[in-house]
Amino acid sequence: MYGIIATWRMALEGITKADEMLKNHGDAGDAIVEAVKAVEDFPYYKSVGYGGLPNEEMIVELDAAYMNGNTLSVGCVGAIKDFANPVEIARKLSHEKVNNFLVGSGAEKYASKNGFERKNMLTERAEIHYHNRLKEMTQEIKPYSGHDTVGMVCLDENAKMTSATSTSGLFMKRSGRVGDSPVSGSGFYVDSEVGGASATGLGEDVMKGCVSYEIVRMMKEGMHPQEACEKAVNTFSKELIKRRGEAGDMSLIAMNNKGEWGCATNIEGFSFVVATPELEPTVFVVKHEGEHSVFEKASQEWLDDYMRTRIAPLVRK
Amino acid sequence: MYGIIATWRMALEGITKADEMLKNHGDAGDAIVEAVKAVEDFPYYKSVGYGGLPNEEMIVELDAAYMNGNTLSVGCVGAIKDFANPVEIARKLSHEKVNNFLVGSGAEKYASKNGFERKNMLTERAEIHYHNRLKEMTQEIKPYSGHDTVGMVCLDENAKMTSATSTSGLFMKRSGRVGDSPVSGSGFYVDSEVGGASATGLGEDVMKGCVSYEIVRMMKEGMHPQEACEKAVNTFSKELIKRRGEAGDMSLIAMNNKGEWGCATNIEGFSFVVATPELEPTVFVVKHEGEHSVFEKASQEWLDDYMRTRIAPLVRK
Repeated sequence: MYGIIATWRMALEGITKADEMLKNHGDAGDAIVEAVKAVEDFPYYKSVGYGGLPNEEMIVELDAAYMNGNTLSVGCVGAIKDFANPVEIARKLSHEKVNNFLVGSGAEKYASKNGFERKNMLTERAEIHYHNRLKEMTQEIKPYSGHDTVGMVCLDENAKMTSATSTSGLFMKRSGRVGDSPVSGSGFYVDSEVGGASATGLGEDVMKGCVSYEIVRMMKEGMHPQEACEKAVNTFSKELIKRRGEAGDMSLIAMNNKGEWGCATNIEGFSFVVATPELEPTVFVVKHEGEHSVFEKASQEWLDDYMRTRIAPLVRK
Repeated sequence: MYGIIATWRMALEGITKADEMLKNHGDAGDAIVEAVKAVEDFPYYKSVGYGGLPNEEMIVELDAAYMNGNTLSVGCVGAIKDFANPVEIARKLSHEKVNNFLVGSGAEKYASKNGFERKNMLTERAEIHYHNRLKEMTQEIKPYSGHDTVGMVCLDENAKMTSATSTSGLFMKRSGRVGDSPVSGSGFYVDSEVGGASATGLGEDVMKGCVSYEIVRMMKEGMHPQEACEKAVNTFSKELIKRRGEAGDMSLIAMNNKGEWGCATNIEGFSFVVATPELEPTVFVVKHEGEHSVFEKASQEWLDDYMRTRIAPLVRK
């Protein structure tokens, strides 16, 4: 058995690559990093890697993580700039004995010393988005939206499981802001003896509940990934509403060590991608039915529309 | 009922202050921050705040967090330098709508803009430690030891609970390294409807298991804090040994919303401090008896010796 699951349609190209690798007895570490890199490299996804939207200073600062479910080794980078593939740096950090979570200029020094590819991550398109948002912000104060982290869980034929995340975080975030993506147990968690989970949404709320850890914990008690995702998201969303009057966006995906998978979300319009031996890389779109997150294969129309809006010309206001 | 519990003997002076505040109907937020600040300000504690040991570049970089158990609001700073009281910055960040976790220069900008006290946190004594360690490192490669984070949980008369941490992290750590102290669910977690927990030890290992979250979760299931701490620490230590051949230092303290408390550790020599209406601020020293972490009041001799060794003259080698 093998399999891989990821948040958002944007993961499709990467998942397709990873699926090929896993089919050919590839390693869950190699496959997940290739899959995330494909998202990081694609310039039209504006929430991950190259082309990601910048912070309030118009600097693209990125968060990423990698976890090995055999050893529970974790590697994380927070608020790193000018490197092409944060997920590769996170994986490298997971091999260190200590100093596994590096942020800011320290993370950049580490990446430099280890020869990772430097790159100016701010695209012209992201710059237009920044200027347009600045204009809008003079009218209404709602600087935050669009936090579409890519988060993945992967299982290979050797029963090794991994999880990885990569994101440019909240658009217009403060300099130095770190979300849930590099926070173990919140943005990601994986244990090869059980399964893994990963989150996208408002990191500030996800980390109040260690939602990825909680899903893995419930899978360990025997729960199916779908049930575990729904229970974790529904319970914690309600808890946040009770305590704070509102709950931020929160969408989780999970896969267990049998290759079974699931997802849950508290928003409309969430999509995700799965590949297993029985399922070619497929995009699903999620809807709510009461307490349940139900999903169906994305239609060709939906898929065409997705890519069309991503690459549509952008005019500076 | 009220109460406060903290890792390590070094928290005694702060806990004594907080105990006075709580006795006089003080708020769990104010009390815990005063308690942590007292540790941050004391120059002879070499793992927290002023006097904390520097990173490999001889720069003191600090991590801290604050969590409000009523709202589950979290504020965190990572790898921040040149500010006197990171815990106050963390508390302020917990009041922000988003951008609750800031690191490095971004965290410093935020602290500057908000008028927090700037301070060169590197003491002459810490500098001597740094140089001496450099000399030792030419003989043996063991750069890491002494990661004595202060972590606290506090309950006030209004049944509000808080948790906070502060640390200079691993001595000789890499620039930009962040440990478990600002990582929600790992270094700290608190829910006023249940209780809270906080960790000290090897952050890199603590964050592999979300140990503070796990303790709070087990207390939610009805477990006494002592039982929850022991179960979490023993189970996860064994898991790390099974997966990795070894488990890093890990010591946890917890208090529930009835003011009951507990601790567990996988090392020798851990100490902690507790105050409740029935117990004046008291230092306990922990020993192992099989699976159990048993503790007894520190003797006057132990306490005298503790302070003597902390302030002993230090000679540059």
